Amino acid sequence: MIPEKQALIYEGKAKQVYSTTNPDDVIIRYKDDATAFNGIKKSTIANKGLINNEITSLIFEYLAHKGIVTHLIQRLDEREQLCKKVHIIKVEVIIRNVIAGSMAKRLGLKEGMIPPNRIYEMCYKNDEYQDPLINEDHAVAMGIANYEELDRIKKAALKINQYLYEFMDNIGIILVDLKLEFGKDRFGNILLADEISPDTCRFWDKSTQKKLDKDRFRRDLGNIEEAYEEIRDRIKQALRDTTW
Amino acid sequence: MIPEKQALIYEGKAKQVYSTTNPDDVIIRYKDDATAFNGIKKSTIANKGLINNEITSLIFEYLAHKGIVTHLIQRLDEREQLCKKVHIIKVEVIIRNVIAGSMAKRLGLKEGMIPPNRIYEMCYKNDEYQDPLINEDHAVAMGIANYEELDRIKKAALKINQYLYEFMDNIGIILVDLKLEFGKDRFGNILLADEISPDTCRFWDKSTQKKLDKDRFRRDLGNIEEAYEEIRDRIKQALRDTTW
Repeated sequence: MIPEKQALIYEGKAKQVYSTTNPDDVIIRYKDDATAFNGIKKSTIANKGLINNEITSLIFEYLAHKGIVTHLIQRLDEREQLCKKVHIIKVEVIIRNVIAGSMAKRLGLKEGMIPPNRIYEMCYKNDEYQDPLINEDHAVAMGIANYEELDRIKKAALKINQYLYEFMDNIGIILVDLKLEFGKDRFGNILLADEISPDTCRFWDKSTQKKLDKDRFRRDLGNIEEAYEEIRDRIKQALRDTTW
Repeated sequence: MIPEKQALIYEGKAKQVYSTTNPDDVIIRYKDDATAFNGIKKSTIANKGLINNEITSLIFEYLAHKGIVTHLIQRLDEREQLCKKVHIIKVEVIIRNVIAGSMAKRLGLKEGMIPPNRIYEMCYKNDEYQDPLINEDHAVAMGIANYEELDRIKKAALKINQYLYEFMDNIGIILVDLKLEFGKDRFGNILLADEISPDTCRFWDKSTQKKLDKDRFRRDLGNIEEAYEEIRDRIKQALRDTTW
């Protein structure tokens, strides 16, 4: 039985979270609002909420099938998901397969460079301080998580990256990098939370190198909605062909 | 036999490096130049080169006695040291026992906070990019070092911090944080290089909390030379009383 939506308990840049009649569940509503550069650039992208809800739901179901524990219970409708209620751990986990974005800029590296290793980063999720890069010691010092939890998060994140990299590769997309967030439920379980979408990943078309992600918004490249739809359609097609 | 000084081969912000008649050795000359905030603030501090040469030489000898491999062969005179020639590894290693400086600023933490853990940081040694914080994956991706070398550096750095924290504690000084650099000799050995001085550490008097380090220069607190001399004199006194 689906619990009923109650009060808005949190509103982020791209999503709202509502309490429900089940205290362990929340309803997450995907908005069309788009922000970049820590909220300096703001706009809406038509239908983004719908598309990202669908993409995230498909990917989270795929990952669940692979053994990853996520907060998603089920997609409810075009904009909403029923999810397990978690306390979000205040780190943004980034895994990079190809150098781009902030890493290229901070370190003076060429975008598109393929490193010999997977790059795992953590940022302190704090808009006021612009989500600064941290390491495990900082996270522990700040009481964000303990070493054992950070280790569990890292292991899960690297698995997720591996599964998703291979999945996207099969549909002609390079998973350049992705940002993950994890939450802890009231039993202490750590679950993949938030979303996985063109808002939180860099997706490049393998044959044309065309950017099919939020960089189209950040860098005013146009055809944003079409790019997001392209990602959704390729994922849907791939999963339609899959028999689990 | 002491090799003879030859050509200037490198000039940094606080030191010059000269080749010598022995291709495996260099002579390092300590300058009085002081810079802060990546070279934006510049001045000279009277006798700083002399004092830092003496402090570094005393500390490096103490660490060598504790089993740490350093580049120092011997102090030659007031301004110069004879050292093993190394290729500096392009990371600045920082160990923090108390929160201060850039970490406090970047993460919005209170200076003076004592974390429950030791904090180990690496920065990419690159003035153009303002020595940005990195992690092991970044260092490997950029070809700065491999994981095994980074692990050796981390283990050595944590030991050095432990030895020095205890040593300074015994002379009434809190070792708040310290910055280390390591170099590789032509045999692949990794050696502690650069300097350990009030330029590269934060030293607070245990009873008065008075800053006895480069923050006096950065923050225009005055009596800089006196603070550096105070550190030197306490270290000298402690080592005079020590029988190895």
